[in-house]
Amino acid sequence: MQKKIFIAAMALGSFGALADEGMWTYDNFPKAELARRYGTKIDDAWLNRLQQATVRLETGCTGSFVSANGLILTNHHCAAKCIADLSKPELDLSAQGYLAADRAHELPCPGYEVSVLIGTEDITARIASAVTGLNAAEAGKARKRRRTELEAACEQADIRCESVSLYDGGQYFLYKYRRYTDLRLAFAPEDAIAAFGGDPDNFQFPRYCLDMSLLRAYENGKPAKVVNFLPINFDGPAAGELVFVSGHPGSTDRQLTVAQLQFLRDVQIPNWLLRNSELRGRLIQFGKRDEEARRQVENRLDGLENSIKVRRKELDALLDERLLADKSKRERELQAQVARDAKLGATDAWKNMAAASAQLREIYLPYLFTEGRAGFAGDLFFFARQLVRAAAERDKPNTERLREYTDAALKRVKVAVLAPTPVYPEVEQLLLSFSLERMREWLGPDAAVIKQVIGKESPDSLARRLVQGSRLGDVAARRALWEGGQAAIDASTDPMILLAKSLDAGSRAWRKRYEDEVESPTTSAAEHIARARFAIQGARVYPDATFTLRLNYGKVAGWIENGAPVEPFTTLATAYDRATGQAPFSMPDRWLKAKPTLDLSTRFDLSTTNDIVGGNSGSALVNARGELVGLIFDGNIHSISGGYWYDEEKNRAVAVHPAIIRLALTRVYGATALAQELGIR
Amino acid sequence: MQKKIFIAAMALGSFGALADEGMWTYDNFPKAELARRYGTKIDDAWLNRLQQATVRLETGCTGSFVSANGLILTNHHCAAKCIADLSKPELDLSAQGYLAADRAHELPCPGYEVSVLIGTEDITARIASAVTGLNAAEAGKARKRRRTELEAACEQADIRCESVSLYDGGQYFLYKYRRYTDLRLAFAPEDAIAAFGGDPDNFQFPRYCLDMSLLRAYENGKPAKVVNFLPINFDGPAAGELVFVSGHPGSTDRQLTVAQLQFLRDVQIPNWLLRNSELRGRLIQFGKRDEEARRQVENRLDGLENSIKVRRKELDALLDERLLADKSKRERELQAQVARDAKLGATDAWKNMAAASAQLREIYLPYLFTEGRAGFAGDLFFFARQLVRAAAERDKPNTERLREYTDAALKRVKVAVLAPTPVYPEVEQLLLSFSLERMREWLGPDAAVIKQVIGKESPDSLARRLVQGSRLGDVAARRALWEGGQAAIDASTDPMILLAKSLDAGSRAWRKRYEDEVESPTTSAAEHIARARFAIQGARVYPDATFTLRLNYGKVAGWIENGAPVEPFTTLATAYDRATGQAPFSMPDRWLKAKPTLDLSTRFDLSTTNDIVGGNSGSALVNARGELVGLIFDGNIHSISGGYWYDEEKNRAVAVHPAIIRLALTRVYGATALAQELGIR
Repeated sequence: MQKKIFIAAMALGSFGALADEGMWTYDNFPKAELARRYGTKIDDAWLNRLQQATVRLETGCTGSFVSANGLILTNHHCAAKCIADLSKPELDLSAQGYLAADRAHELPCPGYEVSVLIGTEDITARIASAVTGLNAAEAGKARKRRRTELEAACEQADIRCESVSLYDGGQYFLYKYRRYTDLRLAFAPEDAIAAFGGDPDNFQFPRYCLDMSLLRAYENGKPAKVVNFLPINFDGPAAGELVFVSGHPGSTDRQLTVAQLQFLRDVQIPNWLLRNSELRGRLIQFGKRDEEARRQVENRLDGLENSIKVRRKELDALLDERLLADKSKRERELQAQVARDAKLGATDAWKNMAAASAQLREIYLPYLFTEGRAGFAGDLFFFARQLVRAAAERDKPNTERLREYTDAALKRVKVAVLAPTPVYPEVEQLLLSFSLERMREWLGPDAAVIKQVIGKESPDSLARRLVQGSRLGDVAARRALWEGGQAAIDASTDPMILLAKSLDAGSRAWRKRYEDEVESPTTSAAEHIARARFAIQGARVYPDATFTLRLNYGKVAGWIENGAPVEPFTTLATAYDRATGQAPFSMPDRWLKAKPTLDLSTRFDLSTTNDIVGGNSGSALVNARGELVGLIFDGNIHSISGGYWYDEEKNRAVAVHPAIIRLALTRVYGATALAQELGIR
Repeated sequence: MQKKIFIAAMALGSFGALADEGMWTYDNFPKAELARRYGTKIDDAWLNRLQQATVRLETGCTGSFVSANGLILTNHHCAAKCIADLSKPELDLSAQGYLAADRAHELPCPGYEVSVLIGTEDITARIASAVTGLNAAEAGKARKRRRTELEAACEQADIRCESVSLYDGGQYFLYKYRRYTDLRLAFAPEDAIAAFGGDPDNFQFPRYCLDMSLLRAYENGKPAKVVNFLPINFDGPAAGELVFVSGHPGSTDRQLTVAQLQFLRDVQIPNWLLRNSELRGRLIQFGKRDEEARRQVENRLDGLENSIKVRRKELDALLDERLLADKSKRERELQAQVARDAKLGATDAWKNMAAASAQLREIYLPYLFTEGRAGFAGDLFFFARQLVRAAAERDKPNTERLREYTDAALKRVKVAVLAPTPVYPEVEQLLLSFSLERMREWLGPDAAVIKQVIGKESPDSLARRLVQGSRLGDVAARRALWEGGQAAIDASTDPMILLAKSLDAGSRAWRKRYEDEVESPTTSAAEHIARARFAIQGARVYPDATFTLRLNYGKVAGWIENGAPVEPFTTLATAYDRATGQAPFSMPDRWLKAKPTLDLSTRFDLSTTNDIVGGNSGSALVNARGELVGLIFDGNIHSISGGYWYDEEKNRAVAVHPAIIRLALTRVYGATALAQELGIR
């Protein structure tokens, strides 16, 4: 879940896509190559319909419209925050699942929104003209200003505009989205079957997860009317069949330079893993206290364990000498080509990138813990930071603001701050105390920020005082501060607001150093490299993932593991065999009771060669006729190194089979109305 | 604490000791080089007296005799397990400290023993003759058999003999120790002043720790009579003064090949760090429940946090491209010399080492979790494994046993199993559940050992059942099983014994693969490399640390950190300034009350250039007159990379200054009798 899978042509001489790899933008989808490889032709109408049926969940996932009445199919783990936020001690929707008795009982998901990409516009030249002749730091500011201006000019009431950098700055686009901000939960199975196998089985295959949920988009209080939705073919695809994935892969690092990869390997990932492994231990131990404690941390812990597995395998990939050797070789080849052609203008790019990476090593820790919030975990400080910053930034001209507070971006900040999500004081204390303690460990007890923030207190007593004294857990208190603007912030004596205010100047100073000394030179160097690569290789390449819409193709296939074939389909019978009765291998009661009535040969999950990554969770698997034939929810363990390259031999996407969805809705949950809406007869 | 510091001549062309580096065996101490560098001559009588005054704590530390009546000065953290085991909920000696009212009140430390090295014997030729003409796996077995035979022939009632491999097998020695098995706690300050600054300050300097304790060796129920002890010079050394450290550095990896270092970097250290960071989080959260929970995990957590800091900086060192580049360069140089001279007989050694390292990657995880016990943490399983193995091994001929159950070694196993240490069921459950869960994560839920051990249970419920059902927390139950031998083990229905029995064949199988496929070829390759290096460089080199007695020299000195000098001495005044009243920066009440009467200019801790590592904790810092002028307890942060090289510019040992010891005993704790015994007037 939130998988990381990528592409990279390790076995190829170049970056051209001979394998089933590539996270293609819709405007550069390799139709001809597809036809050559699979004998299948697709046209613009086909592409357009699929694009319009694909939605982005702003929480970091993908979904698809699957009915004319706004029904969205996505993963259970993509709705998990909603499910957790709607739960209470006496009604645990994660444990029990949820089926709305009718549309009136569909439950609003706090803070959820989805977007549909309805148009794009190339603004590369307009960005370039804004930065011509400037040094890296000035160019960084000018680029941001121009992007904000272009976004602002594009925005309309129902249209959100985002400027997007592709190919590490080789291209810039305006992406225009239609937004839906009223999302409601129609159906979710029990977490036990949605995430059957839990962390032990995560990123494994064979697999048995009904990782699905059904949300519905509403407009003006009514189900949204949708023209382009995907019919579901509940029989699913055949082995070897051509299948597409339309979705929003979150982030890949396939174009990074060796210096950047070494920074990830040496600093960023080990630091992240150490801190978060400890946090995992704290949350697990906290959850052992009683059922309610477990419930309060469950969703957070699931996400954390998933991320730990991802980072761990990413580190393995980066520590694999073959990867860096291959990357170095390609880099030297490109450098040689650049050196032969001064017109490409990238002669100093790698040297500049290495200098920026070296500078990042210098300032990374203080930046991470202050501006990056690694020293101030938890929702309450998040609210405080957002409230303090938003108040200050809203008073500035749009183009002078920090990027995340421009008019275009501010709407999302507001949704996040004012969402009625529950806040658990003990969990908040745990998170804040933990993060303060680790900040003191990594920065040292004599760092200025430690003396300023912790002073003569202990992290524990400070966290307790701040959490117990803050009223920011109350959405009304947050709303009052949001609406009251700078005057309300100035007058507030809430201890978390006071903390955020006292940190603000220092945090902004680190951010400025980061932007001037690292981000701007990195962007500039990456742009120069990307343009040179573009000039040499053209659109045979695809951009690194950026949580923007992409399409790829592949086929239903297993792989060979330790010399033995892994079949691409699993069945319900084996899921029952695997159940132990103990979490995370316990089947929900409904499934145990229904077992005698079910066809145990029903297909459950499947694997494909599609090149996906975290953010593709919830994506439709689509056949050549444009029917939904699967629901992407994970990759196999080899898929994680996809952050840096795509290995067609072993990298597999993992999806829920539509047959188990049909069986679940009709035979286990009695979801008659939803089944009908999905066209099940 | 349990620091890792080493040597390596990174800046030198060879491995010769131009810097203050080297963990020299007493028989190869570079007296001439010392005289040349410092103008100071020492003789064999001087060396002999210091050797006899140095004791090894079998728990992994060093100490020194400091009176004719068997008084031993060592670190507080070296006595911490004793202090914790002697504590009870109603009497927390760690929190309150302990001063025996008189010798009758000195408290026996469960399981503690110390050894004094009284002689060594070169057995290199006798080992070599046993393995001539054998392949690596056969040689591995023959070598162990010969070592066991030689040890057995050497042992006497009061003499323990250990065969020791130096220079990675370049030399073998029999080390003969006099043992003391009755150790009693005479004095320990409060943990708050012994470990002032806690984990945040650990491996930092300036520092303010009174990390001392006084144990006394007893013989036949009376204080041991000691001829060679170290007088203490309470005024301490001057800046720049020549100082020696005599002690038992635990383990260094300065002679490893690049392939071996890469294994540490890629596999062993990241795996260890991830698992133990999580365990840290679990223990911290457990300890937050109440004061008693905190007390139960405190000592374990202190050790764990220390080890995490060490491993973290070791990983940093291994990720430093300069280190591997330098090691590769030296390796190629040595290889080139070897290639020019076939008589050196090491032509294939690096290739064989790389093959052994590759094989280790294959089998590391199952070996680690089963035979290495990473899947079965906690004292109860430790007892069960030892009881099951010892019963089986004792029935075999001495030379056919696993190395740790030979007659010479068995005594220590018995002490460990029958020590009356308290066992805390909730902590045991935490440890066992955690380790089972991680074993399932790393080996996967379908691994044979997981299906066998966990089956249809959950790690939590299994751990609870095993811990609650086991009687091995009771020392009488352990004694009955130890004395009952194989028949008692066969008849036992204790669930932990049953588990250990059911695992034994599988674990032994992994061990056999490890020994045959990894250990034997590694030892063989290392021997060939070491002999070649020896032939080329001679005794200008010192062997990697192996927790055997070593001596080194250095000087009292600070260093330059970020361009600013760090002074080598700290004072009491600054310790008071640093106190916040909150752990780990809280001063004990005794110190707060005594403050007005104390000379605040008293020196507290100091730093030196001595090349030390974990195991050197508790070592005496000795001046040229053979007086004790400090008590080593830590190194600075740069000392940790000493596992792989010694950096004379920044690597510093950290010691307690004798002036603060005098002040503490006389003015804070009123330890009049002990002060007199130590010669304080």
